[in-house]
Amino acid sequence: MAPTQKNMAAVCYGQNDLRLVPIAIPEPAFNEVILEVDSCGICGTDVHFLKEGGFGDQKLIRPLVLGHESAGVVRKVGSSVTHLKVGDRVAIEPAAGCRTCDLCKVGKYNICLTGRHCPTKNHDGNCSNFFAQYADCCFKLPDHVTMEEGALLEPLAVGVYAGRQADIRLGSSVVIFGAGPIGLVSLIVAKAMGATKTVVLDLAKASKRLEAAKKLGATATIAIGATDTEDAIVKRIQEALGGPADRVLECTGSQPGIRISIKATRNAGIVCLVGLGKEDAQLPIVDAISREVQIITVMRYNHDYPAALEIVSSGYVDVKPLVSHHFDLKDVNEAFRVAAAGEGLKVMVHLTPRDSNNPKKFVN
Amino acid sequence: MAPTQKNMAAVCYGQNDLRLVPIAIPEPAFNEVILEVDSCGICGTDVHFLKEGGFGDQKLIRPLVLGHESAGVVRKVGSSVTHLKVGDRVAIEPAAGCRTCDLCKVGKYNICLTGRHCPTKNHDGNCSNFFAQYADCCFKLPDHVTMEEGALLEPLAVGVYAGRQADIRLGSSVVIFGAGPIGLVSLIVAKAMGATKTVVLDLAKASKRLEAAKKLGATATIAIGATDTEDAIVKRIQEALGGPADRVLECTGSQPGIRISIKATRNAGIVCLVGLGKEDAQLPIVDAISREVQIITVMRYNHDYPAALEIVSSGYVDVKPLVSHHFDLKDVNEAFRVAAAGEGLKVMVHLTPRDSNNPKKFVN
Amino acid sequence: MAPTQKNMAAVCYGQNDLRLVPIAIPEPAFNEVILEVDSCGICGTDVHFLKEGGFGDQKLIRPLVLGHESAGVVRKVGSSVTHLKVGDRVAIEPAAGCRTCDLCKVGKYNICLTGRHCPTKNHDGNCSNFFAQYADCCFKLPDHVTMEEGALLEPLAVGVYAGRQADIRLGSSVVIFGAGPIGLVSLIVAKAMGATKTVVLDLAKASKRLEAAKKLGATATIAIGATDTEDAIVKRIQEALGGPADRVLECTGSQPGIRISIKATRNAGIVCLVGLGKEDAQLPIVDAISREVQIITVMRYNHDYPAALEIVSSGYVDVKPLVSHHFDLKDVNEAFRVAAAGEGLKVMVHLTPRDSNNPKKFVN
Amino acid sequence: MAPTQKNMAAVCYGQNDLRLVPIAIPEPAFNEVILEVDSCGICGTDVHFLKEGGFGDQKLIRPLVLGHESAGVVRKVGSSVTHLKVGDRVAIEPAAGCRTCDLCKVGKYNICLTGRHCPTKNHDGNCSNFFAQYADCCFKLPDHVTMEEGALLEPLAVGVYAGRQADIRLGSSVVIFGAGPIGLVSLIVAKAMGATKTVVLDLAKASKRLEAAKKLGATATIAIGATDTEDAIVKRIQEALGGPADRVLECTGSQPGIRISIKATRNAGIVCLVGLGKEDAQLPIVDAISREVQIITVMRYNHDYPAALEIVSSGYVDVKPLVSHHFDLKDVNEAFRVAAAGEGLKVMVHLTPRDSNNPKKFVN
Repeated sequence: MAPTQKNMAAVCYGQNDLRLVPIAIPEPAFNEVILEVDSCGICGTDVHFLKEGGFGDQKLIRPLVLGHESAGVVRKVGSSVTHLKVGDRVAIEPAAGCRTCDLCKVGKYNICLTGRHCPTKNHDGNCSNFFAQYADCCFKLPDHVTMEEGALLEPLAVGVYAGRQADIRLGSSVVIFGAGPIGLVSLIVAKAMGATKTVVLDLAKASKRLEAAKKLGATATIAIGATDTEDAIVKRIQEALGGPADRVLECTGSQPGIRISIKATRNAGIVCLVGLGKEDAQLPIVDAISREVQIITVMRYNHDYPAALEIVSSGYVDVKPLVSHHFDLKDVNEAFRVAAAGEGLKVMVHLTPRDSNNPKKFVN
Repeated sequence: MAPTQKNMAAVCYGQNDLRLVPIAIPEPAFNEVILEVDSCGICGTDVHFLKEGGFGDQKLIRPLVLGHESAGVVRKVGSSVTHLKVGDRVAIEPAAGCRTCDLCKVGKYNICLTGRHCPTKNHDGNCSNFFAQYADCCFKLPDHVTMEEGALLEPLAVGVYAGRQADIRLGSSVVIFGAGPIGLVSLIVAKAMGATKTVVLDLAKASKRLEAAKKLGATATIAIGATDTEDAIVKRIQEALGGPADRVLECTGSQPGIRISIKATRNAGIVCLVGLGKEDAQLPIVDAISREVQIITVMRYNHDYPAALEIVSSGYVDVKPLVSHHFDLKDVNEAFRVAAAGEGLKVMVHLTPRDSNNPKKFVN
Repeated sequence: MAPTQKNMAAVCYGQNDLRLVPIAIPEPAFNEVILEVDSCGICGTDVHFLKEGGFGDQKLIRPLVLGHESAGVVRKVGSSVTHLKVGDRVAIEPAAGCRTCDLCKVGKYNICLTGRHCPTKNHDGNCSNFFAQYADCCFKLPDHVTMEEGALLEPLAVGVYAGRQADIRLGSSVVIFGAGPIGLVSLIVAKAMGATKTVVLDLAKASKRLEAAKKLGATATIAIGATDTEDAIVKRIQEALGGPADRVLECTGSQPGIRISIKATRNAGIVCLVGLGKEDAQLPIVDAISREVQIITVMRYNHDYPAALEIVSSGYVDVKPLVSHHFDLKDVNEAFRVAAAGEGLKVMVHLTPRDSNNPKKFVN
Repeated sequence: MAPTQKNMAAVCYGQNDLRLVPIAIPEPAFNEVILEVDSCGICGTDVHFLKEGGFGDQKLIRPLVLGHESAGVVRKVGSSVTHLKVGDRVAIEPAAGCRTCDLCKVGKYNICLTGRHCPTKNHDGNCSNFFAQYADCCFKLPDHVTMEEGALLEPLAVGVYAGRQADIRLGSSVVIFGAGPIGLVSLIVAKAMGATKTVVLDLAKASKRLEAAKKLGATATIAIGATDTEDAIVKRIQEALGGPADRVLECTGSQPGIRISIKATRNAGIVCLVGLGKEDAQLPIVDAISREVQIITVMRYNHDYPAALEIVSSGYVDVKPLVSHHFDLKDVNEAFRVAAAGEGLKVMVHLTPRDSNNPKKFVN
């Protein structure tokens, strides 16, 4: 980091007020590294902060750097860091527990109450040129894996965790509600875990996303029209699968999404709730109980970066098709506009010139 | 069975129309036994049929014998039955799967779609003098276990299954919503599995049931008043436990019960839904997802009679205090009135004179 | 079944005494179907009966029909059978529990003490023209799935169960000990479940089998020489994987196989014992305990035919390359000789002319 | 800590060479506390270091402070410690992972490869006046819990973890192999988790320990004679239980113990290996595989101190009877002699005068 370098960050000052401003360049604590961020994908939660001032109990209480789906290059290493060195290309896991509470001790750091997950109301995200992170949250990328793929490990890890908690098995029939980036990584994961029948649903207006699902290998896609009833959609799902679903990955958080998920699932099946929507939802709970449909909840991921990296670097899955747009950091407002409009799939913000850190160019 | 014997049964002909009428004495199929029923407890689901004509998709479509918490004496054995003989005193598990479907093959017979669970709309219950049941659903009672305890194995098995699925552990803090018979067996089970802090909640008007919970060893009971807010109740629970709950056994099926259960549970805790109420419930789903509160559903029990019998016969737990009322079969209407009014705890109907089949008298 | 038809069976009369003799054509019980067997693969356990008079507590105590990896065509249906009709092409699961014992009730029918698993000392196998089986153990094949693939579902189900019990995950590194048919289906399953690094080991003399493993996609194969030490082999495994194994599927049952499996596994990893060898084995048990290597045992499969059929019929996996030899029933002794010699992979015995029941020819 | 205070420690200089020598008084790191140790129980692993120079790959490579079952009083707190203050009485968990490796991240810190578990070859134990430990490994004791009970949480946590991994359930029949302190805590835990039949075995010469097991509520005890065969012992176990065991907690690590454990377990039962003995053991592995007896291994505990403390402080279990001997620190050699001779149960070393830190005296 030359003395003249700046740390430009995409800072959300309030609803619809995103500014590119310089912030301090951090120094590493003993167990941290300083990363020069290369690529940062925009996620729905980043958009929630910008468009709605937050979600759940995560409200904007101060100017907040957005972004958390990033990969970067190590520029400084803390005194006790041994597994990374300056110049290493890494994917950055943005969820870090406190390491000492009851939840962290049993491995549930992802829902640690005092963890440094970013961006949350008290913790800046990393759509900025430089970012300090615990070294153990940084996963070194092999040369043939691009920085963009490194950034995509974040949503992919969400899918890996969801598929694992949903206990997807060889031959499972899986419904995926929502064809946004999380729905699509869930589809990729479901198929990678052995699902042989997959149905992806989204609103009819998201037809491009449903096309993407089809290209990624969904057995069937269902475009939900404004007047479709729950029962009609359940029927279409079951026709597409040849019966009720073994597993559902609900990635919208919407009430209809969760309701249909429960109704479409077989006795003793599992609905895994991944997406966050409105605080409350009216659920068909007697149907769930009397048929023992289990309602499993997941938040973030739980040490799933290693598996996500492994399946990408080995070529077992291909996440590159998820990227639909590329923007330079200076155009971050336009990047957020496109992401919020749902005009494509994953929107990638480049904090360094494209491919500058990729031995192998990113092509999708 | 002398030729002159009659098989009097408590038959529900419609809402609030329960009649004691003779029905045919069954003959055993090759894998069945004919039982002379001794005692039959009245359950909320029996009451639902009588008072509301059913629940969920279980509607009264023909006159239906009620009752399913029974113990009896073997009077005839089918040709291939080897582990039981005439005169054996047994507890009768009323849930029997088809044994050949995908659910039964993996052991989930309790939610088998074509199982012979009783009473369900197509299958008579066993508040009748004689009843045919698969021999393998009949569990022989040792001499020192009374028929009433045999009948109580049914609700106890519900608690055993719920506690098992809720993964109650040594030192768990457990909330039990509802102090009716299922709430009380859940309390007994939670403590037996190692829960060291237990809080039982019910409406203030159910003060007798809360007293029973206290006598059974609940750490604290909470009487819910008409004007108490959800958040106030959550606060009282957490004060009683010294923090959020590890596990909740929700035995009411009510919307407030389920809502408060979720809110009162710690991150990564488990809410186990046992009770059935109205079809739909408005749930704080973002709270559940973002804190990974798991929503586990249970229906009936899953081969839990052996464990239920074992903990009763060994003296590990005492279920006798659960019985508050005794009625002869001829007074079955009054028995149902008392059960429906919630005037006590478990109401027991005696189809043979009390203690006639008990080497050791039932005293509680 | 025309009156003139015969039911020729491959009957083992003693060690190395296999004869083709006519046996009675069975009639179906109410819940059975009579199958005209089309194809029957030869398994190591069949060979054990013929070459060693049995294994473990399964000893030859009477002339026994061998064979249990079969597919056939329904020729008669029992009175209560509804999901199958004459002419249906089915895979035949040879493991059938009693359906009423404690093990069967919780779904562990595969180790039911009184189950009708075949061939076991009291139950004939099905390398015979006609065979009676419970209808619910027969899985209907779609037209595009060949009878040979139907027969291969048996070893594939072993692999599916083992992979499931071993908890293979996305990105797992998996060692497979033994490159015989069970080792190879385990490899197929491991990759299908998400294993990205796989190492298959066998004796150097089994080089053809190791080549097959390589063709099926193993990351690496290791040929074990006569003088290789355990530690040297462990080192080669870890070099091939880039570290210790997450999971091992041990398919030989040999002492070196199990020993090396434990030593090659990471802390908290899982060794799944699939193969059966000598009664006793000397294991490095302090190493296993102090590093919490879990030793999981599996026997047969546990309702894994549906998943096995699903992944074959959907094209998710291809098991056809497993078949190396085809023999007519009349040449069954030669078929067993080849199987016992380990000259190839799976040896298939055809009880009807090849492809006579295949709408789509079997080509591999 | 007055400037004149010394930190006397029980240091093992070699086989049978234990000396009481002064070592430096530690200063706390930011996340540590300095404890003045009150009581320290002697464990078999401490004895292994002294009598055999170590075990497994844990060999004495330098003078090593022994002891790890301790409770003490906080004397200094590190800069970032918030939940403890000077004067707090705490139980000290001696197993601490690195918090950043793959194992720690998923919660398996107990087998972390670089963890600071004590005493291990590179890490001193805490039979010394002063000891530095991570603050989050120190669990505050309520006033009514004695320091001795705090020290006993260590072996109790071993039992809690073993019982949890062995999946002991309500009504389980449980065999415990070995009636030393770990066997006895395992008995206490098994009963607390719902085991209704418990059989404890030990050598005939350990008759006092078997008597203790009986007093702690074992259903039966079996004294193993020098000439008893494995099968005879298996038969006696099954007679005492009325059938095979659901679960076994093997606490000796001996070959006969493990062999009999496997043979005495029912199909699909679980043998949990807790004790460490000789490196290798000859196991009846075909019996285990063909009956799906699962062999589960446990090392230390896995965040089980909170549950252990909870069941002690609530009075759910009583561990005080486990202490058979008390010694002052100056008599530590005699304490080790008694512990090594197996003359009693748990031997407690007092580093401060007895009851000096107990508001309520320790009486057992």
